[in-house]
Amino acid sequence: MKQIRSSFDHATISSHEINDLQARLTPEIGRIKEAWAAGYATEYASLSLSSDTELLGRVMAHARQAESLNPRMVIIIGIGGSNLGTMALLQALGHTDRSVHFADTVDAPYIQAMYDQAEAMLEQGDEILIIVISKSGSTTETIANAQLFAALLQKHKKEYARNVMVISDEGSPLARIAAQHSFSYLSIPQQVGGRYSVFSAVGLFPLAVMGVDIVALRSGAESMKGACTHETLYKNPAALRAATLYQLYQKGLYIHDTFAFSHALYGIGQWYRQLLAESIGKAETKQGALVHVGITPTTSIGSVDLHSVTQLSLAGPANRVTTFLTIAEQKDISVPSGTAFDSLVPMIQGTSFRMIMQAIVDGTQKAYEYAHRPFMTIELPELSAYHCGQLLQMKMVEIMYLGFLFDIDPFNQPQVEWYKKETRKILSHE
Amino acid sequence: MKQIRSSFDHATISSHEINDLQARLTPEIGRIKEAWAAGYATEYASLSLSSDTELLGRVMAHARQAESLNPRMVIIIGIGGSNLGTMALLQALGHTDRSVHFADTVDAPYIQAMYDQAEAMLEQGDEILIIVISKSGSTTETIANAQLFAALLQKHKKEYARNVMVISDEGSPLARIAAQHSFSYLSIPQQVGGRYSVFSAVGLFPLAVMGVDIVALRSGAESMKGACTHETLYKNPAALRAATLYQLYQKGLYIHDTFAFSHALYGIGQWYRQLLAESIGKAETKQGALVHVGITPTTSIGSVDLHSVTQLSLAGPANRVTTFLTIAEQKDISVPSGTAFDSLVPMIQGTSFRMIMQAIVDGTQKAYEYAHRPFMTIELPELSAYHCGQLLQMKMVEIMYLGFLFDIDPFNQPQVEWYKKETRKILSHE
Repeated sequence: MKQIRSSFDHATISSHEINDLQARLTPEIGRIKEAWAAGYATEYASLSLSSDTELLGRVMAHARQAESLNPRMVIIIGIGGSNLGTMALLQALGHTDRSVHFADTVDAPYIQAMYDQAEAMLEQGDEILIIVISKSGSTTETIANAQLFAALLQKHKKEYARNVMVISDEGSPLARIAAQHSFSYLSIPQQVGGRYSVFSAVGLFPLAVMGVDIVALRSGAESMKGACTHETLYKNPAALRAATLYQLYQKGLYIHDTFAFSHALYGIGQWYRQLLAESIGKAETKQGALVHVGITPTTSIGSVDLHSVTQLSLAGPANRVTTFLTIAEQKDISVPSGTAFDSLVPMIQGTSFRMIMQAIVDGTQKAYEYAHRPFMTIELPELSAYHCGQLLQMKMVEIMYLGFLFDIDPFNQPQVEWYKKETRKILSHE
Repeated sequence: MKQIRSSFDHATISSHEINDLQARLTPEIGRIKEAWAAGYATEYASLSLSSDTELLGRVMAHARQAESLNPRMVIIIGIGGSNLGTMALLQALGHTDRSVHFADTVDAPYIQAMYDQAEAMLEQGDEILIIVISKSGSTTETIANAQLFAALLQKHKKEYARNVMVISDEGSPLARIAAQHSFSYLSIPQQVGGRYSVFSAVGLFPLAVMGVDIVALRSGAESMKGACTHETLYKNPAALRAATLYQLYQKGLYIHDTFAFSHALYGIGQWYRQLLAESIGKAETKQGALVHVGITPTTSIGSVDLHSVTQLSLAGPANRVTTFLTIAEQKDISVPSGTAFDSLVPMIQGTSFRMIMQAIVDGTQKAYEYAHRPFMTIELPELSAYHCGQLLQMKMVEIMYLGFLFDIDPFNQPQVEWYKKETRKILSHE
């Protein structure tokens, strides 16, 4: 099968700069290689998800059960790492007739509209499935929504337990509630953090219910093991991407734009946004020295954003690097002729949309070269579960290498607790 | 009527720094005040749109005509400035049963799905309306899509001209085609650039067709005239926002995050993203000196992104300022009790979603204060056309003042032409 392809030809980093990092990264590459085989014991636990056949079996069994309920609407109640991976892959790959909604906020009008739709379905006898996802079970937004939709189910269904799936850490208060109330339940390995959890039940279960081929997805993820643990940087795209981002950061390139030339890939850009921001945005090194590092992720979509942020990217401060994300093969359509508008852009008569898009991608990259703006590229051979699995796995390993280079902990998020603490104080009238 | 409120209490800019800019801005404030009354002659032309009653009359007449067609689906064919304002306001305010789609790319699978839906409607006898928007009429993506959907209409309707609306500059090749083929046509004043065109026919016509109260929208925009041309900076929120952004930029704060605590306002963040990026991202001053200035706009959504980018915002490099965007009054719902999940976050029992959201907003701002991260706030009294009009108008004037302070032209976009030129070369096999 064709594999995703990464290019660094225009990353504007010298072989000297890469070689400087080879020695530093070699032991970390070894650690990641070991961890990939070590199960859930280490911080790198998420790497073991894609080969956990027992997990796949449990997810498949629960997905079949959900299939038998035949829900017309699925509401995923979770926030951040608990839904961004699912959201991204559904946007790229989802294909059932089920309507899917994400309750990821306490924005009243937004949630009310979702509630009204769910209620209308229940009233006409349709089934809905709610999936409550929280590692700790104490995320305010998630629990507020879980209460809201549980109350709705209770109102309409005597035995509503089969309409509820809970995904949480083993032994969490939320897991205990699932057991007490006979809700379906899938666990998250403790060491797997939210933003690395897309190949755990957090992502796999809702994706399976929505018709995504999770076997191919996992197999794509697992297929990156060789390349992403190759000890030579030039043959290791995850490490080479990390080394490039790190060296450019030293020169003041603090922004990383993921520029996807496909509407379907936008969600993957948004998933990576959290992964990069929360993993690498840190005040302190692992040893506690104050550093305030962090790369600001932005997501652009082509060709739409060529008419939006490109002026800034080409003319503004030289403070960003771009990753262009493209798909090689897709269904295509052609520009028809014989219409009133034919004469306006004569060169496109009969041309396929794919060829126009490719000309735009190439034209854009020429403009970036001309303006001396660095970029990397990633090309998916096609938009499939297998290749999305490859992409997401590579990105997660990239972030692990990047955390190592910055000497910060890419698995924690201490400052997120600040707003939570302040919010709890206000809600408790302390 | 209540007005939108701006606060600068946590902008971390001294009165000294503001006073320094008062003298510099005073003449520009005068110019903008004059221009607001001067019609379409100057670069500030867009300021005159909201009081152009003749424009309103034409738009209303055409909107009534479109109403009489009763289209079940509306396809807006345009890109960047030609659709972002409409997209933003529809997300915030749209309320008809018409399905609306944006053909803003040549992404084949994405456009194919839209095409299939349009064709299915035509086959069952429903009407669709296509709105082709391009100032020049030579935007490749727009014309490719115009040809595609025009051919579809021709296939299904003998007299399809009434299903087509064209919005373009007076005398453009696209305007001529509209006349030749008896398409409905509305003009854009030459001096009004795409990203400032939301109160021209570009925004007003599709908004009216989709049920937005464009009279209230315009009236909100016009109501900002007094405040946004007030000669005292402290009483002029547009100029004070510009002065704040400018002074923070001098200290290395190159990123401006619009953090909207409402899903409905996300599109306004995306509209402002283009406005800021393309207007202020410039290689040269008006006099041609090389400067490479630009502020990178990002858009966050609350509370979703508290679990995403906040770690970076609070702990990473001190390179950003945030504008929190909130809505004071909204429909509300409460957290019900008597569910399985009641015990997990005990303090929210019976609390309204609005109160939880307010606690989150306040908690977040406390965390920003604690981390010494600067922010401004804008509060809409409610989510209405009037207040959205105020907000968008204020933001456009803010950008004009900002362009003046940076001494760059906030109305052009020379580097966007680079990718267009390269793309045309490739398509023409030059």
